[in-house]
Amino acid sequence: MRTYLDHNATTPVRPAAMAAMTEVMTQVGNPSSVHADGQAALARVEAARRVVGKALRARPEDVIFTSGGTEALNLALHAAITAGGADRIIVTALEHEAVAATARASGLPVETWPVNADGIVEISWLADRLSAWSDDDGRPVLAMMLASNETGTIQPVRDAAALVRGAGGLSVVDAIQAVGKVDVDFAALGCDYLAISAHKFGGPQGVGALLAACGSPMSRHHHGGGQEKGRRAGTLNVAGIVGLATALDEAVATLDEYSALAAQRDRMATAIRAVAPEVIEIGAGAPRLPNTLGMSLPGWPGATQVMALDLDGVSISAGSACSSGTSKGSKVGTALGLPEDASQGFVRVSLGWNSKPDDADAFIKAWTAAYARAALPSKQMPEEAVG
Amino acid sequence: MRTYLDHNATTPVRPAAMAAMTEVMTQVGNPSSVHADGQAALARVEAARRVVGKALRARPEDVIFTSGGTEALNLALHAAITAGGADRIIVTALEHEAVAATARASGLPVETWPVNADGIVEISWLADRLSAWSDDDGRPVLAMMLASNETGTIQPVRDAAALVRGAGGLSVVDAIQAVGKVDVDFAALGCDYLAISAHKFGGPQGVGALLAACGSPMSRHHHGGGQEKGRRAGTLNVAGIVGLATALDEAVATLDEYSALAAQRDRMATAIRAVAPEVIEIGAGAPRLPNTLGMSLPGWPGATQVMALDLDGVSISAGSACSSGTSKGSKVGTALGLPEDASQGFVRVSLGWNSKPDDADAFIKAWTAAYARAALPSKQMPEEAVG
Repeated sequence: MRTYLDHNATTPVRPAAMAAMTEVMTQVGNPSSVHADGQAALARVEAARRVVGKALRARPEDVIFTSGGTEALNLALHAAITAGGADRIIVTALEHEAVAATARASGLPVETWPVNADGIVEISWLADRLSAWSDDDGRPVLAMMLASNETGTIQPVRDAAALVRGAGGLSVVDAIQAVGKVDVDFAALGCDYLAISAHKFGGPQGVGALLAACGSPMSRHHHGGGQEKGRRAGTLNVAGIVGLATALDEAVATLDEYSALAAQRDRMATAIRAVAPEVIEIGAGAPRLPNTLGMSLPGWPGATQVMALDLDGVSISAGSACSSGTSKGSKVGTALGLPEDASQGFVRVSLGWNSKPDDADAFIKAWTAAYARAALPSKQMPEEAVG
Repeated sequence: MRTYLDHNATTPVRPAAMAAMTEVMTQVGNPSSVHADGQAALARVEAARRVVGKALRARPEDVIFTSGGTEALNLALHAAITAGGADRIIVTALEHEAVAATARASGLPVETWPVNADGIVEISWLADRLSAWSDDDGRPVLAMMLASNETGTIQPVRDAAALVRGAGGLSVVDAIQAVGKVDVDFAALGCDYLAISAHKFGGPQGVGALLAACGSPMSRHHHGGGQEKGRRAGTLNVAGIVGLATALDEAVATLDEYSALAAQRDRMATAIRAVAPEVIEIGAGAPRLPNTLGMSLPGWPGATQVMALDLDGVSISAGSACSSGTSKGSKVGTALGLPEDASQGFVRVSLGWNSKPDDADAFIKAWTAAYARAALPSKQMPEEAVG
């Protein structure tokens, strides 16, 4: 039996979501069809849309179903640029490649909002930057996470969205890691676009949504049929959409339970600090998701820690799954300005809706055992132990 | 109990596919994660990729999983234009909006390859057009269906792809309605790109694939993680991909059984012709999918037929589901140059993998009863019946 502590990469499908999907998949119907079978499928989609709207304090008609978070973020930036006429992009230093690479690929100038040592962007930077905004800079679009996938730190989206709106710009919020983990209120955040992904909160992979506020510019990225009021073409994934809504509904109803994961997270951090006082816990002093422990052990590469724990049956990560094996891992070290050995030593441990105290115990045991075996420059090595 | 005869809009999920998906959804893992849970998910995806490659005579590495057919077609045209440098698009008059609207939105000149009265494009038109191609026209990209969603007519893709290749161009094939219904051999077709959609052959909605031949230009349309060798960003939909492969495997293994649906299709056409000799059966003299009956009853609007049958518990369609309610229905009437009353009178009846002779019986009964009730100009109305 393995211990899964990489819930920010993907979390198990909730049984309620699976049951709902299985039931839908025994029915046939394309929501675009006008006959009763199609209309029954459409009714399921529209019911799901209302659930999503209610869970995230959005109007149902603001919800555009997509194939996942990456597509939602691409769609939002595409809309902001092509329909919104944005001229210049600001992204935080923590953004996932679904934002960072999309911004780079747009051909527009991209500026990076730095993060502080706690893994938080400071609103004063944005206020200063927008005060210095010139007409030549054109219309700004800000793209930022609500909560970091790597550190769990929660960013000042509401204040940032208000500043950007005041400057005549548009804001795109990557809420993929926040939704289902903390309360997310689309109306209160005041952003133009907000992206979510079902498989991060116990829905299936392959489905997500973009919330687009009333009046925010929209422009389709996929061309084809008239689905989603012309905002996203392609046959609707009825089972996936129902699975997303079912999981979100359950996640939002059990946020109190979820927030109790913070106790397990802190127990893990404390146990590690007891044996390895040199550990750096990122964002310990900042508002954070309850489930995410981002930490660095200087001199012990994250990839090595992941491998050591994997062999011991514990799954953690050295950064975003999407960048695993394709880059040097976490962005967070560089973004926070950590020294090279600390930056390389980053790992992410993320609990989930079905995590139990036993999982934290298994992690503590595996990590401390691996740490004891590792020959690290940070450890005082008694001469007799060396040889 | 309703009778579902709109399988070209979407067809029920095959039990084998559902069982495979349910099993996958009890596991957790992001295929991009390096730990054992992630690698187990990756192994499932790669096994599915091999199944798809084998079923369609493609190399597994040519298979790029997407969220469906619309995304696959958008990706192909995007690649042909941005990476392939295509300058001018040729589409057939039958193309789905996922091709037609994408071509229009590209900003490139778009030319339409007409169809003949049988619902087939004639290769001589393309040969003539490419002979007259000038350097000023630039690089051509052809986008064409393998089989029409509305008439089931099978198009001369192999010859067309060879001509386009000879002219230095690229070819995109929409095989969404063909796969799982007739044998599709990607290698033999010789096209650059081929799009498929799982829910058309008994896989789930929300997943599809683009096959891209070795050496054909590729360019990502979604930016983000490095999934699919950088060709399509976004967390892989493991359950959906496994469902797609399982359904495709079963569909390809049972093509003989599927081809026997032609007998039911012809029985329906014969029964209708017996009571309504004015019916026009589109593509009766052309190679066609075994499951699709596209027919027109001049003077009796398709939407009215659909509604009448729907009330009697039979689901058929007046054209592509994706365009239902968003346009005036079928493209086929206009494309074939039918008179206005015949064009408006088009309906599509499409059988599926689980269709039984009873379904054809139910359609014949419902259609003939509705026809008998309808006051149509084409019917000789005895004076006493009118008043």
